Amino acid sequence: MARYIAPSTRQPVRAVLFDVFGTVVDWRTGIASAVAAFADRMGLTLDPEAFADAWRSRYQPSMERVRSGLRPYVTLDELHRENLEPVLREQGVDPADIPTRYLDELSAAWHALPPWPDSVEGILRIKRDFIVGPLSNGNTALLVDMAKGAGLAWDVVLGSDVSRAYKPSLEAYLAPVHFLGLGPGEVMLVAAHNADLASARRLRLATAYIPRPAEFGPHTHRDLAPTGDWDVRAESITDLADRLAPTPQ
Amino acid sequence: MARYIAPSTRQPVRAVLFDVFGTVVDWRTGIASAVAAFADRMGLTLDPEAFADAWRSRYQPSMERVRSGLRPYVTLDELHRENLEPVLREQGVDPADIPTRYLDELSAAWHALPPWPDSVEGILRIKRDFIVGPLSNGNTALLVDMAKGAGLAWDVVLGSDVSRAYKPSLEAYLAPVHFLGLGPGEVMLVAAHNADLASARRLRLATAYIPRPAEFGPHTHRDLAPTGDWDVRAESITDLADRLAPTPQ
Repeated sequence: MARYIAPSTRQPVRAVLFDVFGTVVDWRTGIASAVAAFADRMGLTLDPEAFADAWRSRYQPSMERVRSGLRPYVTLDELHRENLEPVLREQGVDPADIPTRYLDELSAAWHALPPWPDSVEGILRIKRDFIVGPLSNGNTALLVDMAKGAGLAWDVVLGSDVSRAYKPSLEAYLAPVHFLGLGPGEVMLVAAHNADLASARRLRLATAYIPRPAEFGPHTHRDLAPTGDWDVRAESITDLADRLAPTPQ
Repeated sequence: MARYIAPSTRQPVRAVLFDVFGTVVDWRTGIASAVAAFADRMGLTLDPEAFADAWRSRYQPSMERVRSGLRPYVTLDELHRENLEPVLREQGVDPADIPTRYLDELSAAWHALPPWPDSVEGILRIKRDFIVGPLSNGNTALLVDMAKGAGLAWDVVLGSDVSRAYKPSLEAYLAPVHFLGLGPGEVMLVAAHNADLASARRLRLATAYIPRPAEFGPHTHRDLAPTGDWDVRAESITDLADRLAPTPQ
């Protein structure tokens, strides 16, 4: 059993939890591909990548209304489905012209996103020595469906509907720590986003950064490098597996 | 992808959730073995099987105080640890004479129970076609540790600390159904206990019974046979896997 002690916490890490959208899965490719299929079926002309970016751009503002208390917690599934309608309108499509079933199906594409090439193997290797799970704004059903589809071998899936909190609200980080019966220093957050790691660090979780330069396609301009002294800076999830549990020579 | 439609619900089952203590793991053998090691270390004379039975006999009464509202929800870990002390006293051991660390370790034996011989393989096979998880009174940390130790390949682990309810309280069954984004008829409960299945049936979940005649050792006198018209009556979890997803001939 490999032991990894994080420099920032000086405690052995027991659980390695992952940001999901962007860090484990390539949401832009997955959504663009679902949008292209949807456009084909409906006979619409849409730019799939631009559509994916527009849909994702509503992600933070819609969660912010929950975080700030403007509205009670609703799941990310509900936010994705709500946000789809103004995105369609922006692209010149009236959602009222589309059968609800097709809108629901398109929104469910967020349950079926493709993993980055190193995600499945990396998580499986880290799982040998640590508890692995998502620490995501996704709700439990979304994360379970995604894991089944992509082959992500999580030990535990506690979605944002369990904590009823969206990152970077503190409760979003502390709830999974609590349910695992661990202290914050026994849990590591892995993310491609410096702000997410900064929130985890503030709560004294261990932190690992990996770059995902293709997350936003050609538009990626942020998070290309670590901006904090995160405990681990790895190139990929498989590289992270090496760093957490070095293979004996 | 195999499809199984339960006769009682006439809906395709999407998730197969398992009672754990007695149905998936052999708590009596596991606890007796931990008690034997504890007795050796402390130089005590204890009857390990009788100790395990006495400890388990406090399980339902201690949960009943939570279910009835006499006390707020506390985890099964806390109940196990509390109940250990009167059990020791009954065996003539004053818990105050034992270092707390050893009592905590003994209580943690509930995190490390051995699976029945068919559990690991059966769950793995059912997982190919269905979401698999526990539906247990255990708390999340206990269930995750047990799964890591025993090799139970759950897709999702939502302990009683997520619902803050103990079976047969309705919320204990409905919370996981809700978090999975499913309807009750899309979820099957697997249990070796007829009363558990009866509660699930009342809420319109699908049901599967498997016998575990050795659960209480030589003292087993109940649940030796199904007492309801459960959707599936299987001999083991591997047999259940066959019945849910018949191998093509």
